[in-house]
Amino acid sequence: MSYKTYFSSHREAQLEELMQWLRIPSISAISAHAEDVQTAASWLADTLRRGGLENVEIMPTGGHPVVYADYIHAPGKPTVLVYGHYDVQPVDPLNLWQTPPFEPQIREGKLYARGATDDKGQVFIHIKAIEAILREEGTLPVNLKLCLEGEEEIGSPHLPEFLETHKDKLSCDAVLVSDTSLLEPGRPAICTGLRGLCSMEVSVQTANTDLHSGTYGGAVPNALHALVELLASLHDADGRVAVDGFYEGVPELSPLMREEFAKQGVEEDKIRDSLGLDALYGEKGYTFVERVGARPTLELNGVYGGFQGEGTKTVIPKEAHAKITCRLVGEQDPQKTLDRIEKHLRDRVQSGARLNVKQIEQAFAFNIDPSHPILQKAADAYGRVYGTRALFTKDGGSIPIMAAFSRMLDAPVVLMGFGLDDENLHAPNEHFNLDNFDKGLLTVVEFLKSL
Amino acid sequence: MSYKTYFSSHREAQLEELMQWLRIPSISAISAHAEDVQTAASWLADTLRRGGLENVEIMPTGGHPVVYADYIHAPGKPTVLVYGHYDVQPVDPLNLWQTPPFEPQIREGKLYARGATDDKGQVFIHIKAIEAILREEGTLPVNLKLCLEGEEEIGSPHLPEFLETHKDKLSCDAVLVSDTSLLEPGRPAICTGLRGLCSMEVSVQTANTDLHSGTYGGAVPNALHALVELLASLHDADGRVAVDGFYEGVPELSPLMREEFAKQGVEEDKIRDSLGLDALYGEKGYTFVERVGARPTLELNGVYGGFQGEGTKTVIPKEAHAKITCRLVGEQDPQKTLDRIEKHLRDRVQSGARLNVKQIEQAFAFNIDPSHPILQKAADAYGRVYGTRALFTKDGGSIPIMAAFSRMLDAPVVLMGFGLDDENLHAPNEHFNLDNFDKGLLTVVEFLKSL
Repeated sequence: MSYKTYFSSHREAQLEELMQWLRIPSISAISAHAEDVQTAASWLADTLRRGGLENVEIMPTGGHPVVYADYIHAPGKPTVLVYGHYDVQPVDPLNLWQTPPFEPQIREGKLYARGATDDKGQVFIHIKAIEAILREEGTLPVNLKLCLEGEEEIGSPHLPEFLETHKDKLSCDAVLVSDTSLLEPGRPAICTGLRGLCSMEVSVQTANTDLHSGTYGGAVPNALHALVELLASLHDADGRVAVDGFYEGVPELSPLMREEFAKQGVEEDKIRDSLGLDALYGEKGYTFVERVGARPTLELNGVYGGFQGEGTKTVIPKEAHAKITCRLVGEQDPQKTLDRIEKHLRDRVQSGARLNVKQIEQAFAFNIDPSHPILQKAADAYGRVYGTRALFTKDGGSIPIMAAFSRMLDAPVVLMGFGLDDENLHAPNEHFNLDNFDKGLLTVVEFLKSL
Repeated sequence: MSYKTYFSSHREAQLEELMQWLRIPSISAISAHAEDVQTAASWLADTLRRGGLENVEIMPTGGHPVVYADYIHAPGKPTVLVYGHYDVQPVDPLNLWQTPPFEPQIREGKLYARGATDDKGQVFIHIKAIEAILREEGTLPVNLKLCLEGEEEIGSPHLPEFLETHKDKLSCDAVLVSDTSLLEPGRPAICTGLRGLCSMEVSVQTANTDLHSGTYGGAVPNALHALVELLASLHDADGRVAVDGFYEGVPELSPLMREEFAKQGVEEDKIRDSLGLDALYGEKGYTFVERVGARPTLELNGVYGGFQGEGTKTVIPKEAHAKITCRLVGEQDPQKTLDRIEKHLRDRVQSGARLNVKQIEQAFAFNIDPSHPILQKAADAYGRVYGTRALFTKDGGSIPIMAAFSRMLDAPVVLMGFGLDDENLHAPNEHFNLDNFDKGLLTVVEFLKSL
């Protein structure tokens, strides 16, 4: 039977199975969910076994485990390593979810759940595409390995060491990843660049206790004042990051690259309106696509201190906190970037306040040349299923481990994404358009068979 | 028997009784505690009745009720109105309390509980002093009225209207209030000035959903960036409030006033060290006492937005919030001040962000001439109990209703405080030094008998 028929007759059962997985709240960032992450790994291993994959293993790391599996029965054919992740983002603010994040629901052709698109839904496409080929043809057209991790959403802290240790086991001719997006519905894309990432937590401490603003106000340091002053100093009036040396290693945008970006035909007004914004905002002199695809950024992801309850509390808080992440491009060095931000803050901290900085994640940006034959075959596979060949794009997100994969395994990385940018990844009401689930299955089959 | 003997033989029972009251979590700022505030009012009314006061009433207002009582049996003698409050501040951060805020405990001569010093403990002094005179002498040396409210910690929103409505019922020759502090242990003070107060909540909204910092970072407004920029603009590099016209109505400090402040002999190094600070902080050109007693201030009491959990979340938050209060002096107009801050913020809000401002409390500053005879008698009463006459000071705190009392009832306001500045009012581990509870009882008896 055709793969189209195969997938349509198995669709209901497959979605039921995916929803089982989505019910497991495998939030890697929150230690209370450690056991759930483990459960999601076990579920994944069982599913791979049932799907016909071999040598399935839950391999320990310094943190959450890697689930490995393979099927090596195509001598002389290339070996493809599929990478993905089974951990998910935290879910707060919980009250903004229309249905609970871990009670998956299909509404109007979209599957709603935390992890639906990022990345359980997309990993599941590979599992079911492989299973389909095995069932229909009895074997695979390539040698296949899967390496599915549980710490992507916290910056893959243990994966580089894991790759180094298991270099031989994971050796391959190409890495295949689905954790990126189409340009828009019906317009597939292959991402040839991802931004790097670094992150830190910053806190300011002043007095040894919260103080009454009547008794002390105006005469003692306020941790919130000290913090907002520091945070406001991180950008200049033109939206540029004001940290000395921050832009070192950032490539200038050539006229040719600007043309490539312009080809995506992104309508800024449409984006602005869909986000309910009066205006977009960013570094002067760049378009939306250029800002996201080719420029680094420094974002405040969380700031908190003092009274957050209902009403007024006349308190001078003794501490205040901020969470900061940067997206990096080109050759920007994540460690140097963290050090520069830390120095910037230390140089400016208000008298009477003490600064604590905790550096956390680090990942270089990732780039690959679109003219590589395997990328061309991937674009063709999309073309046969979507009716339009994939464009080569650069994405603003980070899959921290991509640079490590391409460097350590010395293999091209093919980013075949099936998500959409408006699917609320990392936000309430994350969902996955099932039309791309269906097409994704066929595209992966087409791609594997074309190698 | 002497009052000293009387109070010492009743001490244990009185403290037990006070602790009953402190167990009621009458937090006026949090609507979930509305019933507790009501319970604290009923407890107070019952206690006043048992203490021998007459015409005890729980009088409704637009919010939490006022508890009224009187004892008018001294024709030809002055009428004293005692004002205080039975509501308390919120208690978070709860984890910093050594013992739970509503489970009072005496440790090393200090009574620990929310409200112990601000203001249940100090109100209780008046109740028990009056009860003692009634029991020992069968009547009071003055005519007495009590007006005890339940909304002081939220800025007494309904008391001005209440005073206006019940002007005749509350008419008096002096208002007596205990809600301020000694200079330090053994050094009593009568406060002749309090700062005014105004407060507002500010929020910034950007997109209609939280956004992924990879997909959008650098190209959309971030509510936290917009907010910290606004908040940082509220002060200049010298610690002065940078809002246009903010200092209108603030009296210049005369050399004479500076001498008066210097007399308090406050050692800045000692304050700095006791707060665990490397340095104090504030408007340039003023001492600690001057900053708190005679200068206005603008404080951030709370700031929050985005991810506050464990770990990293690469989110661009769609909203961010701040709570702001100002302490006002001299003739600074609270309404004008709020409008000026609002204008300052609106003029500066970042492109793509929307600002919401909610103005909340308003109160003028309060000032009284220390040469008034009743203030002199109060200072003498302290002298007889503490062995040292009270100094006349200015306090940085606000009792929003003091200006209204002196204006509407046309009577001098005597602020006889028995607290200490380091008793953690509005902070975790609030407590009341019982030595001042004991001396407070005697001082109030002395004062009432001297009129």
